[in-house]
Amino acid sequence: MTPPLSPSATAQILVEALPYIRQFAGKSIVVKLGGAAIDDSELDLALAQDVLLLRSVGVRCVLVHGGGPQVDAMLRRVGKEPEFRDGLRVTDAETLEIVRMVLVGKINRELVATINGQSGAEPVAVGVSGEDAGLLIVTPRDSALGFVGDVSEVRADLIHRLLDDGLLPVISTVGADAGGQPYNVNADEAARAIAVAMGAEKIVYLTAAPGLLADPADEASLVHRLTSDELRERITHRSVGGGMIPKLTACADAVDGGVSFAHIIDGRVPHALLIELLTEHGIGTMIKREASW
Amino acid sequence: MTPPLSPSATAQILVEALPYIRQFAGKSIVVKLGGAAIDDSELDLALAQDVLLLRSVGVRCVLVHGGGPQVDAMLRRVGKEPEFRDGLRVTDAETLEIVRMVLVGKINRELVATINGQSGAEPVAVGVSGEDAGLLIVTPRDSALGFVGDVSEVRADLIHRLLDDGLLPVISTVGADAGGQPYNVNADEAARAIAVAMGAEKIVYLTAAPGLLADPADEASLVHRLTSDELRERITHRSVGGGMIPKLTACADAVDGGVSFAHIIDGRVPHALLIELLTEHGIGTMIKREASW
Amino acid sequence: MTPPLSPSATAQILVEALPYIRQFAGKSIVVKLGGAAIDDSELDLALAQDVLLLRSVGVRCVLVHGGGPQVDAMLRRVGKEPEFRDGLRVTDAETLEIVRMVLVGKINRELVATINGQSGAEPVAVGVSGEDAGLLIVTPRDSALGFVGDVSEVRADLIHRLLDDGLLPVISTVGADAGGQPYNVNADEAARAIAVAMGAEKIVYLTAAPGLLADPADEASLVHRLTSDELRERITHRSVGGGMIPKLTACADAVDGGVSFAHIIDGRVPHALLIELLTEHGIGTMIKREASW
Amino acid sequence: MTPPLSPSATAQILVEALPYIRQFAGKSIVVKLGGAAIDDSELDLALAQDVLLLRSVGVRCVLVHGGGPQVDAMLRRVGKEPEFRDGLRVTDAETLEIVRMVLVGKINRELVATINGQSGAEPVAVGVSGEDAGLLIVTPRDSALGFVGDVSEVRADLIHRLLDDGLLPVISTVGADAGGQPYNVNADEAARAIAVAMGAEKIVYLTAAPGLLADPADEASLVHRLTSDELRERITHRSVGGGMIPKLTACADAVDGGVSFAHIIDGRVPHALLIELLTEHGIGTMIKREASW
Amino acid sequence: MTPPLSPSATAQILVEALPYIRQFAGKSIVVKLGGAAIDDSELDLALAQDVLLLRSVGVRCVLVHGGGPQVDAMLRRVGKEPEFRDGLRVTDAETLEIVRMVLVGKINRELVATINGQSGAEPVAVGVSGEDAGLLIVTPRDSALGFVGDVSEVRADLIHRLLDDGLLPVISTVGADAGGQPYNVNADEAARAIAVAMGAEKIVYLTAAPGLLADPADEASLVHRLTSDELRERITHRSVGGGMIPKLTACADAVDGGVSFAHIIDGRVPHALLIELLTEHGIGTMIKREASW
Amino acid sequence: MTPPLSPSATAQILVEALPYIRQFAGKSIVVKLGGAAIDDSELDLALAQDVLLLRSVGVRCVLVHGGGPQVDAMLRRVGKEPEFRDGLRVTDAETLEIVRMVLVGKINRELVATINGQSGAEPVAVGVSGEDAGLLIVTPRDSALGFVGDVSEVRADLIHRLLDDGLLPVISTVGADAGGQPYNVNADEAARAIAVAMGAEKIVYLTAAPGLLADPADEASLVHRLTSDELRERITHRSVGGGMIPKLTACADAVDGGVSFAHIIDGRVPHALLIELLTEHGIGTMIKREASW
Repeated sequence: MTPPLSPSATAQILVEALPYIRQFAGKSIVVKLGGAAIDDSELDLALAQDVLLLRSVGVRCVLVHGGGPQVDAMLRRVGKEPEFRDGLRVTDAETLEIVRMVLVGKINRELVATINGQSGAEPVAVGVSGEDAGLLIVTPRDSALGFVGDVSEVRADLIHRLLDDGLLPVISTVGADAGGQPYNVNADEAARAIAVAMGAEKIVYLTAAPGLLADPADEASLVHRLTSDELRERITHRSVGGGMIPKLTACADAVDGGVSFAHIIDGRVPHALLIELLTEHGIGTMIKREASW
Repeated sequence: MTPPLSPSATAQILVEALPYIRQFAGKSIVVKLGGAAIDDSELDLALAQDVLLLRSVGVRCVLVHGGGPQVDAMLRRVGKEPEFRDGLRVTDAETLEIVRMVLVGKINRELVATINGQSGAEPVAVGVSGEDAGLLIVTPRDSALGFVGDVSEVRADLIHRLLDDGLLPVISTVGADAGGQPYNVNADEAARAIAVAMGAEKIVYLTAAPGLLADPADEASLVHRLTSDELRERITHRSVGGGMIPKLTACADAVDGGVSFAHIIDGRVPHALLIELLTEHGIGTMIKREASW
Repeated sequence: MTPPLSPSATAQILVEALPYIRQFAGKSIVVKLGGAAIDDSELDLALAQDVLLLRSVGVRCVLVHGGGPQVDAMLRRVGKEPEFRDGLRVTDAETLEIVRMVLVGKINRELVATINGQSGAEPVAVGVSGEDAGLLIVTPRDSALGFVGDVSEVRADLIHRLLDDGLLPVISTVGADAGGQPYNVNADEAARAIAVAMGAEKIVYLTAAPGLLADPADEASLVHRLTSDELRERITHRSVGGGMIPKLTACADAVDGGVSFAHIIDGRVPHALLIELLTEHGIGTMIKREASW
Repeated sequence: MTPPLSPSATAQILVEALPYIRQFAGKSIVVKLGGAAIDDSELDLALAQDVLLLRSVGVRCVLVHGGGPQVDAMLRRVGKEPEFRDGLRVTDAETLEIVRMVLVGKINRELVATINGQSGAEPVAVGVSGEDAGLLIVTPRDSALGFVGDVSEVRADLIHRLLDDGLLPVISTVGADAGGQPYNVNADEAARAIAVAMGAEKIVYLTAAPGLLADPADEASLVHRLTSDELRERITHRSVGGGMIPKLTACADAVDGGVSFAHIIDGRVPHALLIELLTEHGIGTMIKREASW
Repeated sequence: MTPPLSPSATAQILVEALPYIRQFAGKSIVVKLGGAAIDDSELDLALAQDVLLLRSVGVRCVLVHGGGPQVDAMLRRVGKEPEFRDGLRVTDAETLEIVRMVLVGKINRELVATINGQSGAEPVAVGVSGEDAGLLIVTPRDSALGFVGDVSEVRADLIHRLLDDGLLPVISTVGADAGGQPYNVNADEAARAIAVAMGAEKIVYLTAAPGLLADPADEASLVHRLTSDELRERITHRSVGGGMIPKLTACADAVDGGVSFAHIIDGRVPHALLIELLTEHGIGTMIKREASW
Repeated sequence: MTPPLSPSATAQILVEALPYIRQFAGKSIVVKLGGAAIDDSELDLALAQDVLLLRSVGVRCVLVHGGGPQVDAMLRRVGKEPEFRDGLRVTDAETLEIVRMVLVGKINRELVATINGQSGAEPVAVGVSGEDAGLLIVTPRDSALGFVGDVSEVRADLIHRLLDDGLLPVISTVGADAGGQPYNVNADEAARAIAVAMGAEKIVYLTAAPGLLADPADEASLVHRLTSDELRERITHRSVGGGMIPKLTACADAVDGGVSFAHIIDGRVPHALLIELLTEHGIGTMIKREASW
């Protein structure tokens, strides 16, 4: 328990936070959760509080999740070994059925349950799959990968409407083609596509790192702010940790696609989302198109 | 392929159907599918066409589904034997997780995919779980049964809003208590609760029988129309097939709760829904509160 | 009485008709009645049912009528011989007064009475003259013809508003110039001008023939579909019955003016309108701008 | 031509009139024209100007007309002698057809033409019959009189909607029963029923007399104001000219039915309507429920 | 007291005035009062009646006032001699405070009180300063003059909203720069800027002269109408009284800026405003852009 | 400058403040400033920031001010000695004119200027007098006091509308009777009447004391919370400083009149308003009707 703060310290924080609250009111923010964050129930609780608080001051919050580790576990439970090619899951019909059950029927449900358990008398979380009302229209990527798709179109009407009604959509990244056939979709990429289609103010990636590190081996080398051009240069020169590349590319694509800010923050810090959004200095990495900070 | 009909025969059917179409426009109809119907893809296709057609003339259609057989199959696949007490599934935490994955992540998804595959350029089906936005608030039934709940409140706002937007909700019958804890719920009963809460015009149960039979052994003994009082009397005197009792009770409760009509029709007949709703004689059993046919 | 149809035949017709109903909902359809149809009370009844049914599923129906034979009869009754020049009625002030009394005060009223007698508790038909609220603004055609005018402008606001209110306008084809002076107007032509001004989906001419006949002497030579260019070529080459030329020209002008479809159907067949609009094959001749059937 | 007035005299009249204009803005006024006024084209012109001016400052004007003399003339023209019983026209089917043609097809049309000829670029008059959209629902009065009806219900929706659209309804007093059968209706009485149903502020009867005369033989004995009770007493004691009784009864019924004021004014004075409504002293007789002048 | 007018004279004035009332309904009119008019309580009363009457028939009236003489008096009362340079008040901080107190706290209040005292049960006048909600954004004119500003931007939203609510804004001509610093502003010029920004139909200057005089020495030489070009030519050639030049320039600028008409009228004539606006000939000078009277 | 706070301390304050922000969004808060606070420009700046921040998160803020000391100073400047009877200002016509000039033309203006100087590109403050649009309708208190009135009715429409438009009303406490005659009104009392009429959530009195002190001589004896009944008891038993009694009575009347909370806080502490409203413990005294804290 932190000791009580002086009135003037309190006033200082509030005077600092209120303009951000004003600025974000009515704006949309897409928050992407990785598989790691999902299984820590205490972090989930803090995140649920954060998005409920942001929602209560008028921010239109959308959660997007993947769930690779959980899919692997379920595949193994039914006796099927996960298979990858170039880092992408080979997805035959049986695998697809398991992917869908785990994402839509398990992870999404658990997030909805955690949020609704914190909502008090009015449960506001609603689970949505990318297949619903044509949210994520996909085209197949490569027949060798099976049912793995790229998002070719986003129909965000349903999401806008749920937000208009004060609800909090939690989106599983399964898409479908025009014939209704479902496909497995990369979650970082799907979150970006949704944020761009919604004209979101921000996309926030919760990761298991403090943000973008100038030296991947040194957690103190956090880069606080950079432009999408600077980010793309680092990606090209491989001066970033390899595992971060898809997420960083999604960030650059998001801001170049019209999202005002992309953030990569440490999902392991409780209330990281609130601190990043409502304080001047934030705690992670912020990417913007132009360098006019 | 049926031979082409004469203009006057065609006019006769249209003159007969149009008043029903007018009467149902803007009204809500809840259709409950049983597990049997779900696995026949041809029937699913005809049903998808029927609800899309009804929707296209202004009927507000809601699909509700269960999925007992499919849950049993998945439980066995992960090495767990289904267990029942008085016909109700004993639902421990692990079973609940499987129930949720199968209903929300598999059956619901397949229905959504079939309908959206028939929707043309505008996918309209949206999967919903009873946990979303407090749709089905439940209280536990009996601690010996584990996570089995009774619907104590229905928050139909989400459903109304989806219908207002021209969408077609497909509902899985998982509910939650105030703390967000999910529960397994009987699907016939959940469909009734939803229909009553929505002030639906009709609830239609698609079954594997022609309707209510005066003599359960004789398919020709179909009862076309009866009141809820007459139905309750038959239930009391056990003059109906035992397996039908929960569904029949739900029908009686629905019309006594304000739903104008309950129907039990043969889900094995293609387009049964359309024929029941848009022709004078129908093909199944219709239950109403008062005998003013 | 036609024998009852099998459920599957019924389903077939409904599955066929429902997309048309969906397609026409909210669209406007202008139906022109000739003098012959007007005096057969049984046909009138069937037509009244048809337009009421179409209205009940959201079609915006407008009836337009002329009444040459009835005007002739009334003129003779007050001792005045009808006079024509090149097929057009010579209309002096006294004749104009009789034209107006017969069209607005007699035929229009009878159609309104027939429809309202079928409307049940809510009479929906409203008689309108082209003089009302500037509906048909005309310029005189030829001083030798007296008060015979051509439609130079249509102010369809009144008609749109009546339709918005769920009413069914029945229009007499009397127009007026800017000074309020009334003029006699050709009804086929007025119907076309109204349909074009309303942006109607369809204009339907009810005639005393099956439609356009390839061989005017052979009722079996019905042309089901043709483009406005094909129609104009037939008119130019006089390969159509002479009496049909004004109506056919009006059809070509209507579709070239933006009405999606023009239909010529047999007003002597009961429910011809319903059959033409809600079945795949129709019963008359349909004209469209492009040949993309 | 009156000589130009001084600025101060002008200011005096305007200062006096403006509060009335304010008071009537948005209120409905029903004006009943008798057969006499109808045939004087100069008076018609002045009346058309008056209602157009009142409409232009926001008064919702409705004209109602009868037309006994004109019906008599047309009946005689087709060789039929008018027949009356107790002052009421015996109306067989043939007479009814003539009544309808003369009222709806001739007098109504002439009023519409005169007003629209004065409306400039935007014709605003719309002819309406009591048969349209159930405006005047009637019940037969007495089988001996044939198709003579009493107004049992007024559906003023159509009139309100036309007024909402800035239009000026001109109503012929033909009504219909639930089956669509038309009936002849007394025009003074129909005007009253319409005014009451509309919640009109005023009903104004234009007559061929200065108003109610204390001594029917002395035009200088005009009664300026009286209550409905006082009026009923004069009717009972026959201290009024016999021909005026139906009109006076209609006035008393109107104000007792909720119309704020009934006026009887001299239709032979040009602009009588404007003078009565916009000056302090008026020129005719005003009837009100309470004596709080 | 003028003698009562004949009905026909009354009708003549009303028939003449009503089209103007119709024409102005919903339009905005800005009325500028000079210091002289302000201190005559009888004139104030007549003006209050005029604007209330105009408002009551839908005219959107705005009053703008200055108050030079009253400021001088107050300055002297606190022992400070007014100082002018080129006809402009030298405005140091202390003077500015007095200007503001007199305009906003005294003159504006007295006008509001007079109007509200005439409004009956619903006081409608609302005092507004140019500082409120950024109504008059100014830039300093000349440092030698101190706090004297020119209007660089008008934010008329507040005024529109008050008018939408049926209120009557009375505006003091004090402005402010972006930092909130107030400035003294010329009232004729501020009135013009407001009228242009509002897209007003008319601006009316109440002065202590009959209008623009062809011969400044001869009150009978009133110029009734002229174009802004003609007016500018007279200003250039100094063929107008010198004291009128700023007001005349404001008139020319107003109509060139989009105000349909500028009027200069004699504020010493009671009800001058009403007479100018609602009679054909008016009593002052009217300026328009084009000579199409 | 306070040292930067740790992320977790920041998160703690934000998590605490956000529910208050949510709770107050859309609610109205009336803030009364005393004469002392008004002349400290630094405090004024902090207050301007506070109300602008609260407004930016959806709180509907209204400022109400008096100005006794400033009126006294101006009276003396024009050579008139202030005169009081029982603590109330004797207000003759000349005094009233000075009161109005000082309150409306000076203090109100300075508050508006300070706020608009902080508003950035969109000035939002609008000065309002209680005379405007009938905001404060008063009746005279006692003829011996001259133009001193009691608020008998509040017409808060204007205030609601300004708030609806995102504006920030600053109200001077001058009222008027039905004839438009202005009156001097006690500011604490006027603030209460406005808060009650608006159905405000809170009324906050900024004073030159920490709040209500149990021992008026001991600033450490602050009473944090009490009910209106407890407060009235203290007033009755005079266990409060005499000078506070009118303000305390106004607080009790406010909460008994429907305002949810009354606050008395120390206007000498910068950002006192923000701290009181957005932290759990506040810094002054809060009065509520019921003791359910």
